Amino acid sequence: MKKVGVAILGLGVVGGGTYEILTQNKETFKKIHGLDITVESVLEKNKERALSLGISEENIASSIEEVCSNPNVDIVVEVIGGIEPSKTFVTKALKSGKTVVTSNKELFARFWPELEKEAKKMHVGLFFEASCVGGVPIIRTLQEGMQANNLKSIKGIINGTTNYILTKMSSEGWSYEEALKQAQKLGYAEFNPTADVEGFDATYKLSILSSLAFNTKVSVEKVYREGITGIDKEDIAYGKKMGYTLKLLGIGKNTENGIEVRVHPTFIKNDNPLASVNDSFNAVHLVGDSVGEIMLYGRGAGALPTGSAIVSDVIFAAKHTEYYYASFDNTEKGAEKTKFVPDFTSQYYIRLSVKDASGVLAKIAGAFGKNNISLNEVFQVSVDEGVAQIIVTTHECYESNIKKAMNKISALDEVIKVNGCIRIEN
Amino acid sequence: MKKVGVAILGLGVVGGGTYEILTQNKETFKKIHGLDITVESVLEKNKERALSLGISEENIASSIEEVCSNPNVDIVVEVIGGIEPSKTFVTKALKSGKTVVTSNKELFARFWPELEKEAKKMHVGLFFEASCVGGVPIIRTLQEGMQANNLKSIKGIINGTTNYILTKMSSEGWSYEEALKQAQKLGYAEFNPTADVEGFDATYKLSILSSLAFNTKVSVEKVYREGITGIDKEDIAYGKKMGYTLKLLGIGKNTENGIEVRVHPTFIKNDNPLASVNDSFNAVHLVGDSVGEIMLYGRGAGALPTGSAIVSDVIFAAKHTEYYYASFDNTEKGAEKTKFVPDFTSQYYIRLSVKDASGVLAKIAGAFGKNNISLNEVFQVSVDEGVAQIIVTTHECYESNIKKAMNKISALDEVIKVNGCIRIEN
Repeated sequence: MKKVGVAILGLGVVGGGTYEILTQNKETFKKIHGLDITVESVLEKNKERALSLGISEENIASSIEEVCSNPNVDIVVEVIGGIEPSKTFVTKALKSGKTVVTSNKELFARFWPELEKEAKKMHVGLFFEASCVGGVPIIRTLQEGMQANNLKSIKGIINGTTNYILTKMSSEGWSYEEALKQAQKLGYAEFNPTADVEGFDATYKLSILSSLAFNTKVSVEKVYREGITGIDKEDIAYGKKMGYTLKLLGIGKNTENGIEVRVHPTFIKNDNPLASVNDSFNAVHLVGDSVGEIMLYGRGAGALPTGSAIVSDVIFAAKHTEYYYASFDNTEKGAEKTKFVPDFTSQYYIRLSVKDASGVLAKIAGAFGKNNISLNEVFQVSVDEGVAQIIVTTHECYESNIKKAMNKISALDEVIKVNGCIRIEN
Repeated sequence: MKKVGVAILGLGVVGGGTYEILTQNKETFKKIHGLDITVESVLEKNKERALSLGISEENIASSIEEVCSNPNVDIVVEVIGGIEPSKTFVTKALKSGKTVVTSNKELFARFWPELEKEAKKMHVGLFFEASCVGGVPIIRTLQEGMQANNLKSIKGIINGTTNYILTKMSSEGWSYEEALKQAQKLGYAEFNPTADVEGFDATYKLSILSSLAFNTKVSVEKVYREGITGIDKEDIAYGKKMGYTLKLLGIGKNTENGIEVRVHPTFIKNDNPLASVNDSFNAVHLVGDSVGEIMLYGRGAGALPTGSAIVSDVIFAAKHTEYYYASFDNTEKGAEKTKFVPDFTSQYYIRLSVKDASGVLAKIAGAFGKNNISLNEVFQVSVDEGVAQIIVTTHECYESNIKKAMNKISALDEVIKVNGCIRIEN
């Protein structure tokens, strides 16, 4: 039976989950995969944590050098997160000839080519299924299931924290602040929730996923990003009445005009399969020229779902002798020839508070018209103490034109406030 | 660049789709995968069909022997369907050292171990992603994405024809006959629809999927099978009012009592992610001890979706040098130690037409009670000309007890007809 030695760097939530799966399902892995997988070493500052998981003292390494020089370690699992010290640790592991499995989306989105170069030099593997959408095997699907396709689009609910918050704002009528507080209470959101609620986390994932989907490096900087902190529960409620569900979507499209990548709150029709993905669940929807549309749904985070992805990579690495690199030039240089869409188009939902006076609507409509934006629907939804709420939806138009029009509109004397400006996606 | 020669056996819908993808995306495969894939040979009785696809005369083989002796052919794609001549052709291809990629669920469900033995002898690959759920990469997910898990259940809408029929019966109020006729008109159902509507097709797929999920041979004969031909649109409508959607589900469970596999019409709650999988779409829902629940959704049939799966296998076979066999003993002998549940439990929905007389309900309830079946809900939904419609739902109970109770009940003088008896799944 093939013996496989694993080291785990970091015993946080995912590290603990990985350890748990590797130890509890050890017999299954022997029986089914013919692999005798042992955790030979862990690197964790909090020794108590390691001991409480049942790891014996002699397996707790005191430095990355100790891990890297351990001849029993074949595969190093990095689940620390963040850039440093992860980058240094992963680089050292690769340089010492260890295959690396990581869940680190930020590291991978920013330094994949650099790390892959090291892996190639040493002919070792570099795996990252756990970096995107936890237990959902989306990386494997993109790499080993969709090869027959030129992918047209990838759209995903790829952050569980924001999906929980938006679900509760919709189903319970909670405000953003109330929903965030509850998410923090349940452990779905961190004390400092910025990475999730401002869309950074989704941006890293979209960078990785759209690179794989479109076979070119899509750097983090290319992704337009907008979080959910400005979302008013009123807009979720109005959208609902109009047949829309609000989700923070990561959207990648490969169009005739180039590649377009963005993360922002998005209204989708209620019958879109992504609309019924609720709470902290994630899902990724793909469209390919052969396969048509497919969707993968599951838990995007958590000890065991993310651990499941890590262990899947460990087993894949141990069973397949091939090293595992990008099937395209994944460097910035390789992407120089790739066309990116500088100014994307979308439909928009806009809600304004305006003075209830004659001629207001004409001025607003005029500002849209002058910027080549044609309106789809216009509703006056309420009038209260001389203030009217107007909702406008547009046909497909350029983002740049919307910006110009909204500048004009918000400067109008009659416009009290732009309450919401939310993209609509079919 | 690695040259890969492919032969296609059968140029029906899927064969045509496979040919189309291999030729139209040839440059993509070169650029992205470094593979120069050429269709070197086709075996198709209808020469006109081959020529109309643009295949040159010299590449149309006149016999399987010609294909097998062609040194340019590395991979043989079998998309004929049915047992013979597919079995003979596939066996010959394997014996001549060709890797085989097949979409043939019936062949694979019945003869996988036998074929794999031949493949092993010759050290060639045997791939079958396209045999189950068309373009949805469920085989790859089970083999390369879920390795960390002991899977607890697999539930799927794995037949598009019946899903189209049931969707239309629900959304349009059509009868089974009306929906079937429309499905035939659209090409979703064959002229002889038996394989689909009686659940045979789903049974083959469930046999393959649950074998992979539970790491033991689950033979076709082990699968309880019930089709949709007896479904009354009234029951779909009543179910809808009670919060249920009717689907033909393939269900595999790995419980403490053993493995349980069945294909039958099933009521699921409207908020079950499978409930919103409509028309000819398919989906498979898995529960694993690590990953929790995940679902894959997409097109289960059609030229290009199934072709996508075939080509995915071709590329996987060409890129990975390892042969690709079951990671468990997939023979009947290997399954001898596996426990199967002889008598499964379920909740039930039952609709009866009874004489509107006093004491009827007591007799019916008595028959259930005597067979250890406790009732969840009882409704009298209408009375018309002395005939009352009674709907009963049960708590979890044994299938064998339901059979006994229903025999008793249908023999009662007061019971005019058992209209529907449908399992409910959580």
